Amino acid sequence: MSLGVCYFPEHWPSERWEADVRRMADLGLEHVRMAEFSWSELEPKRGEFEFGWLETALDHIDERGMEAVLCTPTATPPRWLVDEHPGMLQEEPDGTTRQFGSRRHYCFNSPAYAEETDRIVTRMAERFADHPAVAGWQTDNEFGCHGTVRCYCEDCSAAFSEWLRERYGDVDALNDAWGTAFWSQRYNDFEQVEPPRHTVAEHHPSLLLDYARFASDSVVDYNDRQVELLRAANDDWFVTHNFMGHFSALDSYDVSESLDFASWDSYPTGHSQREGDDPAVEDLLVGDPDVIGLNHDLYRSVTDEPFWVMEQQPGDVNWPPYSTQPADGAMRLWAHHAVAHGADVVSYFRWRRCRFGQEQYHAGLLKADGTPDRGHDEAARAADELGSLPGLDGNEASVALLHEYDNLWALEAQPHAPEFDYWDHLETYYRALRARGVAVDVVPPTRDLEPYAAVVAPTLHLVDDDVAARLGTYVEGGGELLLTMRSGVKDRANALLNEPAPGPLSGLVGATVEDWGTPHPEMERELRYDGDPFEYRVWNERLSTDAALAVGEYRTGRAAGHPAITANAVGDGHARYCGVWPGDSLADAIVSDLLADAGVPATAEPLPPRVRVVERDGLTWVTNFSDRELLVKPPDGASMLQGSETVPGYGLAVVDAPLTDVGVEHR
Amino acid sequence: MSLGVCYFPEHWPSERWEADVRRMADLGLEHVRMAEFSWSELEPKRGEFEFGWLETALDHIDERGMEAVLCTPTATPPRWLVDEHPGMLQEEPDGTTRQFGSRRHYCFNSPAYAEETDRIVTRMAERFADHPAVAGWQTDNEFGCHGTVRCYCEDCSAAFSEWLRERYGDVDALNDAWGTAFWSQRYNDFEQVEPPRHTVAEHHPSLLLDYARFASDSVVDYNDRQVELLRAANDDWFVTHNFMGHFSALDSYDVSESLDFASWDSYPTGHSQREGDDPAVEDLLVGDPDVIGLNHDLYRSVTDEPFWVMEQQPGDVNWPPYSTQPADGAMRLWAHHAVAHGADVVSYFRWRRCRFGQEQYHAGLLKADGTPDRGHDEAARAADELGSLPGLDGNEASVALLHEYDNLWALEAQPHAPEFDYWDHLETYYRALRARGVAVDVVPPTRDLEPYAAVVAPTLHLVDDDVAARLGTYVEGGGELLLTMRSGVKDRANALLNEPAPGPLSGLVGATVEDWGTPHPEMERELRYDGDPFEYRVWNERLSTDAALAVGEYRTGRAAGHPAITANAVGDGHARYCGVWPGDSLADAIVSDLLADAGVPATAEPLPPRVRVVERDGLTWVTNFSDRELLVKPPDGASMLQGSETVPGYGLAVVDAPLTDVGVEHR
Amino acid sequence: MSLGVCYFPEHWPSERWEADVRRMADLGLEHVRMAEFSWSELEPKRGEFEFGWLETALDHIDERGMEAVLCTPTATPPRWLVDEHPGMLQEEPDGTTRQFGSRRHYCFNSPAYAEETDRIVTRMAERFADHPAVAGWQTDNEFGCHGTVRCYCEDCSAAFSEWLRERYGDVDALNDAWGTAFWSQRYNDFEQVEPPRHTVAEHHPSLLLDYARFASDSVVDYNDRQVELLRAANDDWFVTHNFMGHFSALDSYDVSESLDFASWDSYPTGHSQREGDDPAVEDLLVGDPDVIGLNHDLYRSVTDEPFWVMEQQPGDVNWPPYSTQPADGAMRLWAHHAVAHGADVVSYFRWRRCRFGQEQYHAGLLKADGTPDRGHDEAARAADELGSLPGLDGNEASVALLHEYDNLWALEAQPHAPEFDYWDHLETYYRALRARGVAVDVVPPTRDLEPYAAVVAPTLHLVDDDVAARLGTYVEGGGELLLTMRSGVKDRANALLNEPAPGPLSGLVGATVEDWGTPHPEMERELRYDGDPFEYRVWNERLSTDAALAVGEYRTGRAAGHPAITANAVGDGHARYCGVWPGDSLADAIVSDLLADAGVPATAEPLPPRVRVVERDGLTWVTNFSDRELLVKPPDGASMLQGSETVPGYGLAVVDAPLTDVGVEHR
Ligand SMILES: [Mg+2]
Ligand SMILES: [Mg+2]
Ligand SMILES: [Mg+2]
Ligand SMILES: [Zn+2]
Ligand SMILES: [Zn+2]
Ligand SMILES: [Zn+2]
Repeated sequence: MSLGVCYFPEHWPSERWEADVRRMADLGLEHVRMAEFSWSELEPKRGEFEFGWLETALDHIDERGMEAVLCTPTATPPRWLVDEHPGMLQEEPDGTTRQFGSRRHYCFNSPAYAEETDRIVTRMAERFADHPAVAGWQTDNEFGCHGTVRCYCEDCSAAFSEWLRERYGDVDALNDAWGTAFWSQRYNDFEQVEPPRHTVAEHHPSLLLDYARFASDSVVDYNDRQVELLRAANDDWFVTHNFMGHFSALDSYDVSESLDFASWDSYPTGHSQREGDDPAVEDLLVGDPDVIGLNHDLYRSVTDEPFWVMEQQPGDVNWPPYSTQPADGAMRLWAHHAVAHGADVVSYFRWRRCRFGQEQYHAGLLKADGTPDRGHDEAARAADELGSLPGLDGNEASVALLHEYDNLWALEAQPHAPEFDYWDHLETYYRALRARGVAVDVVPPTRDLEPYAAVVAPTLHLVDDDVAARLGTYVEGGGELLLTMRSGVKDRANALLNEPAPGPLSGLVGATVEDWGTPHPEMERELRYDGDPFEYRVWNERLSTDAALAVGEYRTGRAAGHPAITANAVGDGHARYCGVWPGDSLADAIVSDLLADAGVPATAEPLPPRVRVVERDGLTWVTNFSDRELLVKPPDGASMLQGSETVPGYGLAVVDAPLTDVGVEHR
Repeated sequence: MSLGVCYFPEHWPSERWEADVRRMADLGLEHVRMAEFSWSELEPKRGEFEFGWLETALDHIDERGMEAVLCTPTATPPRWLVDEHPGMLQEEPDGTTRQFGSRRHYCFNSPAYAEETDRIVTRMAERFADHPAVAGWQTDNEFGCHGTVRCYCEDCSAAFSEWLRERYGDVDALNDAWGTAFWSQRYNDFEQVEPPRHTVAEHHPSLLLDYARFASDSVVDYNDRQVELLRAANDDWFVTHNFMGHFSALDSYDVSESLDFASWDSYPTGHSQREGDDPAVEDLLVGDPDVIGLNHDLYRSVTDEPFWVMEQQPGDVNWPPYSTQPADGAMRLWAHHAVAHGADVVSYFRWRRCRFGQEQYHAGLLKADGTPDRGHDEAARAADELGSLPGLDGNEASVALLHEYDNLWALEAQPHAPEFDYWDHLETYYRALRARGVAVDVVPPTRDLEPYAAVVAPTLHLVDDDVAARLGTYVEGGGELLLTMRSGVKDRANALLNEPAPGPLSGLVGATVEDWGTPHPEMERELRYDGDPFEYRVWNERLSTDAALAVGEYRTGRAAGHPAITANAVGDGHARYCGVWPGDSLADAIVSDLLADAGVPATAEPLPPRVRVVERDGLTWVTNFSDRELLVKPPDGASMLQGSETVPGYGLAVVDAPLTDVGVEHR
Repeated sequence: MSLGVCYFPEHWPSERWEADVRRMADLGLEHVRMAEFSWSELEPKRGEFEFGWLETALDHIDERGMEAVLCTPTATPPRWLVDEHPGMLQEEPDGTTRQFGSRRHYCFNSPAYAEETDRIVTRMAERFADHPAVAGWQTDNEFGCHGTVRCYCEDCSAAFSEWLRERYGDVDALNDAWGTAFWSQRYNDFEQVEPPRHTVAEHHPSLLLDYARFASDSVVDYNDRQVELLRAANDDWFVTHNFMGHFSALDSYDVSESLDFASWDSYPTGHSQREGDDPAVEDLLVGDPDVIGLNHDLYRSVTDEPFWVMEQQPGDVNWPPYSTQPADGAMRLWAHHAVAHGADVVSYFRWRRCRFGQEQYHAGLLKADGTPDRGHDEAARAADELGSLPGLDGNEASVALLHEYDNLWALEAQPHAPEFDYWDHLETYYRALRARGVAVDVVPPTRDLEPYAAVVAPTLHLVDDDVAARLGTYVEGGGELLLTMRSGVKDRANALLNEPAPGPLSGLVGATVEDWGTPHPEMERELRYDGDPFEYRVWNERLSTDAALAVGEYRTGRAAGHPAITANAVGDGHARYCGVWPGDSLADAIVSDLLADAGVPATAEPLPPRVRVVERDGLTWVTNFSDRELLVKPPDGASMLQGSETVPGYGLAVVDAPLTDVGVEHR
C-alpha cells in the first residue's frame, strides 16, 4: 500500500537529483522507476557505457530508504544503433518503414536487435546486480504501444513461417485447418505464407488470427528472454512489465507467465476520450470507474497477485484530443481506487513535467519549474492515508469474467457491425456486476473455475471440446454460468464449426442458434425478459430451445416471438445464454438473476451512477466518481479509516467493515 | 425462367457431392455455377493438373439433368504462380503493391499473366469440351471488384503508352487534343505519359479520361481473349460474365460485345448500405426496387438479350457495415423481380455457407452445417412458381435511358459538388419512369433510338457531332427527347467545347447555358415548373432561350426569373432540357409530361412507394418492396398466375394481363 | 489604383492575341501577368528555346500602353526535364514520390533543379531585359501550394543536416537545445538527423519546429536566387511573389525581404468553404471581409508597402467542395475592398476560362467561348471607378497585430485541442478590431512598435529576452499591450522555459499562469469580465496575480473564482493578459477597453455584421459584405466619390472623408 513515482534524472542537471529524491521521500513516496528510455544516455556510442549517472541516482534513493525499479531501455534504441541495423525497423502493411524519431521503432523478430537487446540488458543487469536500491525491474516499456505489436517486415515474415511450421508441422495440415481451398489460397510450403500485407480486399480470417497469435507470441518470447537475463544477474529481483488499458494486440496472460506480477499504466481521463464520441463531463474530469476497474481486475488476475499501477495519471495528459484538467481530488481518488482493487503500489508518472521532447504537455507531480503541480498535494495526502492502513492481503472475487485474446482477435477481424468491440461487450457485463457491488476476477477459460460461484463468459467465440467440458463440469458441480451470443461458433483455426452454434456448448445451453443478424440502429431492437420490455444492441440471435427454458423473447424484427435468452438447469447449476448484446438495464436484470441463483451477495438496487464500492481484506472502499455528495452508512461500531459518512464529489471513504454491511446513496 | 446456384465442391468432402446435387435438383434448381476460384485446386503445382474432382461434380450434375456453368479460375492465381511472376501483381497510385492474400491480385496488362491465362483457360476448356453437363462459361469473376480495373504498375504504364500511340498516332495530336500547354505538361513522346500516379494536386482531366478508357479496354481485351479460347474449344457453349451493380470503372457495353449474354450479381440489402448514409428500414430488409431494377435493365440492354442473375443474395451478406437479415419473402421476391425485368436464370450465391475463408459471414441456401437456411425454402417456392410459368420472350421498352461510361468517367473526375454521382442522377429519372409503370432500356447514345417513343438522356457531357446529329434526327422524326444539365459541355478528349453548352445540341435544345453553379445545401434551391413550385439539388444552370420555350424558371438565387427548364418543338418531336438535378417531385412532373407527349402509357398517379409493376411478354408482375399490404386489381377475367388480389408486405403477384390493365394501391 | 489580368496566350491561337489584348485595354485593364506555367512552351526540348510567342504577346501589350508582369516558369518543370533528373521530385513522409502530372513537383533542395532554375531564369531574363512592356516579375507561383513547402527526400535530409550544423555548430549544442535525452534521441553527428518521416508516434517538437524553419528557409533561398538573377538582368524591374491566404508553411516576412512588394491570390468564396464546416450563405456568396482583410493587411505589412492582389477571383472557382456562383457585385466589391486595404493593383485570374487542363471549372473574365462572363462587366465598372480616384498613398494603422511564424509552427505541432488554429485565434482579435472600424498592421514582434498606439499579441508562444525587453520598453513608453494565453511558454528551441508562463513577460504582465487546460466543448466555459458574464473557448489558464489587477475571473470549472484576465499598469502604459480564447463578445469588450486606453478612435458600437469601413489616404470605403441594405451617413459637405447614402447588399461607397466621420448602419 505505497506510492511511487517515475523519475528521469537524465533530464535534469545532476545538482538537482539529491534534492529531488529528498522531496520524493518527504512527500511519502517509497518507489522510484527509472531508465526506460535512457539507452542513448547509458551508451552514447557503441561500447562506451555511461552507467555512472544512474548509479548516482540510485545512491540517492538508497540513502533515503526508498527502492528503485529499473527498466531495460529497449523501447528506444539510439540513433547510432538503428543506423548500424536499418533492417531492425518495423514496417507497415504497405511496406512503409516505421522510422526512428518517436519510440518503439524496433521489430520483435529482428535477429540483430535481439542480440543488441541481450547485450544491453546483460550489461545493465550485471552493473546493478549488487546495488541495494534496486528492488526489481520493468522490462522495456508498454509493449506494443502505438500499434507496434504487429510488424510486416521480412524478418517477421520469415519468423511467421517458422511459427506456422511449428504449429502445423505439415503445410497441408495448415491448408486443411485454414481452408485454403477458399479463393485459391493453397500453400505449397510455409515459406509462402506472408504477413497480412496490403491487399485489395480482406485477408483470410485464419491467417489473421494466426498472425495475431504469432505477433503476440513474438513479444512474449522477446520479454521472456529479458526476464531470463535479469533473473540470471540477480534472482532476488522482481520482474514486471507495464501493460496498457484495454490493449488488444498482446496476450497479457501469456506475457505475465514469466513475470512476478503485472503492472499497468492508468490514465483515466485520457481513456475517457478514447471510449466514445460523447464522454460525459464527469468522465472527462475523473474517468469511468468501471473502465479503470476492469483493467485493475484484469492485471491483478493475470498473475493472481496484487499488481502495481506503474504509471498513474498525475494531472493533465498530452495525448487525448482535449487536455482537460482532472477534477480536484482525482489524483487521490485514483490511488485509493487502485489499492482497493488490489494494487500494492501506485506510482505516479512523472516526477516533474519535462522541459523538452514529446511530453511537454504531460503533467508531473511538479511543474517544469520545480514547484508543486496539482497532483503533488493529492499524492502527499494519499501517501499519508495509504501509509496509515494495515498491510492488506489480495482481493477475493466470487465471480469470474472470462476473457480470451483468441476470441478478441477473431472478432476484431470480423465484427460485422461497426459498434462491435470486444472490450465494450465485456464492459457491459462488468459494469452490471460492479454496479451491484460484486467483485470480479478477469480470467481465461483455462483458469480453475471451481472457486467461483458464478461465471460470466461473453462471446466464447472459439470453443474446443476441452473448454466445453470444463464449463460443463463447472455447471454440473453447481456453478452458475452465463454464456452469450457469438459463442461456440468457430474452432481454434477460426473456421466455422460443422454444427449449429453454440457448437460443443449446445448440450450445456440446451438451445441452438437458428440464425443471427446485426440490426441497423434504425431498426427496432426490443425483447421481453422475465415479463418486462428491454432494449438490446448490435447483435441478435434467433434461438431454438431444446432442454432450455426461454426466459427472454423478441418483440420486434424477424425473430419476434422467438427465444432470445435461455436458461438451462444442468446438474446442480444453470447455464444461461443471452443471444443479444444487452442494454444496461437488461444486463442488470440478467446479472441480478445470475447472482441470486449463485448466492453471491449483491446490493438490492444498483449503486448510484459512478459510485463504486470495493472490498479488500476486510476493508471497504467507497469511491465517488460522481460530482454529487454521497451518504455512507457504515455498520454499527465500524470505524471509518478514511473519510466520513458524507463523501463529497470525487471523494472517498474507507470503512473497516465488509462491503455487504456498508450502505451508500447519493444525497 | 429457372433457378440455379453457385457451388464449391472443392470446399466439401467428395462424399457429400452426390447428395448435394440431388438436393439441388429436388429443390428445383436447374443450373450450377462452379470453379471460379479453383485454380489452386485445379493446378496445385505448376503443370500438375487435378481436373478429376471437377469432372466428378459435373458427372453428378449431368446425372440429375441439370446443367453446369464453368468459370475460368483467373480471378485468383495461386501463390506459386505469383511467386514465379511477382511483377504480375497490381500497384496502387503510390506504388504500393496489391499483394496476394485476398483476390483479384493480377494486372490485366501483365504479359506473363496473359500467357498463364491462355494456358489455364485452354487446358480447362479442352478438358471439358465434351462434357455433356457443361452448357457454358463465365469468364473470370466480377472483373474489377475491389477497385482493380485501374492498376498503376509499369506494365500498365507501357501498355497505356501504346494505347495512346494507337489512338493519337502522333504525340502532338495528343498534345493538341488534351491541351498539354496547361501547366507545362507537353509530352515529347508517348513513352513519357504515365498512369495518374500520386501527385500533390489533381491530374489533367484528359489524361484521367483516357486512363479510364484504357483501363476498361484492358479488361475488354483480357476478356475477349478468354472468350476466343473458350469458343475455340466448343462453339456451342455460351459465354457470359458476371458484372456488378452500379459499377463504374468498366464499360459493360464494350465487354458484352463478345458475350452471348450478360449476367450480374445482385445483393439488394448490401447495395442499400452503400447507397447513402440513412437507408430506410425497408431498404435494409429488402433493398430498393429501382436500384435493383436499373441494374437489371442495364445488363439486359447491354446485349439486348435476356440476362442472368449469376449471384442472387440468399440471406445475410458479410460485406456491408451491418449484416442485416433480409425480410421474410425477400429471397423469393428478388427472383420474381429479376425474371420480370428479363432474367432467364436466377442463380443463388451460394449453396452452403462456407466454413472457412473470407465469406464465413455470407449466407447460403444451406447453413454451414448443411441444414436449410432462410433462403432455402424461398428458393424452392420460387423454383416451383417460375417453373409453372410459360416460356417467356424478352422485354419490350418504349423509353430509352441513355448511359455512357465516357460521361460517367469525365464527371467522376470533375464532380464539382460532393453529391454529384452519375448513377444517382440516372436513378432520379429511372425512378420517375418506373414509378409511372414505364419500362426502360438502358442503352448508349449510339444504339438505334428509332424504336423508342421517348429518350431520356441525363448529362450527355461529352458530345460529338455524330451524337448530336443522331439525336436531332430522332426528334425530327417525332421522338420525344429529354436532355439535362451538363450536356454538350466537352469534346471526346474531355476539353471544353469552343461554344456555349449544350454545344452541338444547342440548335436542337433551342437554348444555351449562360452560367452554372453548384449551390451549397444551405442555399435555397427552388424553381417553378408549369406554374408549380419545386425543389432541385446539386446543380443549376441559368439558361438563355432561343427557339425554346421556358417551361421552368428559378425562384431563388442569382438566376431568379431566368429559365431553368425548356422545351423546343423540332420537326415532329420535342427536345426538352432540364438545367437542374430535379428533386423527386420535379422529376415526376417532367417525366409525366414527356410520356404524355410521347404517348407512352403511364399510370395516372405515381405507384405507391416501393411498389413496382413490370410487364414481360404479356404477364405483369406486381412486386411489393414495402411492408404494407397491397391491393391488386386485375382486369376482368384475367387470371392471377401467382398470388392473389391481396399482396402482403414483401410479397408479389403475377397477372396474366398487360401492365396497363392492372391497378395497384396500398391498402 | 488599377486593375490587371492573368493571361495565357499559349492556350489560344496566336491570331486571337491582338484582339484579346485590345479587349483588355478597352475594359480598362492596365497590367497583364503571363508565363508562370509556360516552361514546356518556352523550351519544348532541352536547349530549344521558343521565346517568340511570348515576345509577340508582349508586343501587343506594349502597343496598347499596358504593362506586363512576367513570371519565372519554375513551378512546373516539363516532363523531359523531370525524366533527366528524377531525383528532383519531392517525397512524402512515407517515401512516396510526388510525381509529375499536376504542378509543384520539384524539391527546393535539389541541386540539379537549382541549376536548371538558374538556367531558365537567366535565359528568360536576358531575353526580355530590354522589352519595354515588362515592368517586373513574379517569381515562380504560389510557393508551397498543395503542401509542397515541406519535402522529405534525401536532398532535403542532407540540406537539413547542413542547416542544423550552421545553426548549432556543434551537435551537442543541438542535443542540449532540443533535449534529446528524451526518449533516447541523442545524435552523434548532424548527418544522423532526418526529416520528420513516418513514425508510429509524434516527432520531437524541437525537430518539428526546426524542420518547419528549415523548409521555409529553403524556399527563401530558392526565391532569393531567382530575385538576384532577375535584378542582374535589369535593375529597374520590380520583383514580387504571389502568396496565398492563411498559408502556414512559409514565412512570408522572410520571403518578402528580397521583394519590392508582396502580392497574394485572393479567392474569397473558396476560402469560405475552407474556413469551417458551416459557412453562412453570405460567406458562400461573397466571402468574409475579415478573412480577406487580414490577408490584405498581412501582405501589405510584410514589406510595409502597397501590395498587389495578383490573382483576384473572377467568378466561380473549381477547387472548393461547392462551386458556388458569387453574388452579383462581388467581383467589383472585392476590387474596392482590396484597394481600401492598400492594394495598388488588383489583377483578375484569368482572362478567359481555359478549354483544357485542371482548371476548366474555374471562371475567367471571359467564358471559354470568348464572350463576357459575369466578372467581365464588374471588372469594367471597377476599372472605371478606381481609375477615377486620385492617386493614393499607403495605409496608416494605429494598432499592430503581432504575427510570427515560429509561434504558428510550434502551436501547429502541439495544438492540444482539436479547435486550436493559429489563424483562427489571430482572426478573433482582428475581427474585434475591424468591427470597431480600426485599421491594423500585421507585423512580427521584431518590427518597430513605437508608431502604434496599441499592440495586440496573440499567443507569443516562444519568447526570448529580446522580445520581452522590446515589449516592456513599448509599454513603459505609454504603449497599450494585449498579451494572450500560451505566451512566454517556450524558448526558441521549442523547449519549455524554466519558469512559469509567461516567462520573461511575467514582470510586464504582473501575473503568472498557475495551470491550464483545454476544456471539452461539453464543459461550461464562462467567466466574468468587468462585471459581465461572457463565454470563452478552447483554452483556459488559471492566473495568479502579482502586480496586476484581475479584471476577469472564471465562473465555472476548476478555476472558478480565480483570475482569467489581468491588467497591469507599467510606466505610461498597460499590459493586459487574456488567459482564454475569447468568444466574439468578450473579444469585443477587451479590445474596446484597450482602444479606449490607447486613445484609438473606434466606433461606439460594433459595425453591423459583415459591414466594414476602411480608410486609405483620407478616403473611406464602406464595403457591404451582407445582403442587407446599408445607410451611410457622410459628414456634412463630404462628397461621395462612389455610391450613395444607400448601399445595396454586396455594394459599396467611397466617401471623401475620414473614417471616424462616417456613420454606417443596416436599414
Ligand atoms: Mg495465447
Ligand atoms: Mg468505350
Ligand atoms: Mg523566420
Ligand atoms: Zn518485423
Ligand atoms: Zn498493372
Ligand atoms: Zn526534397
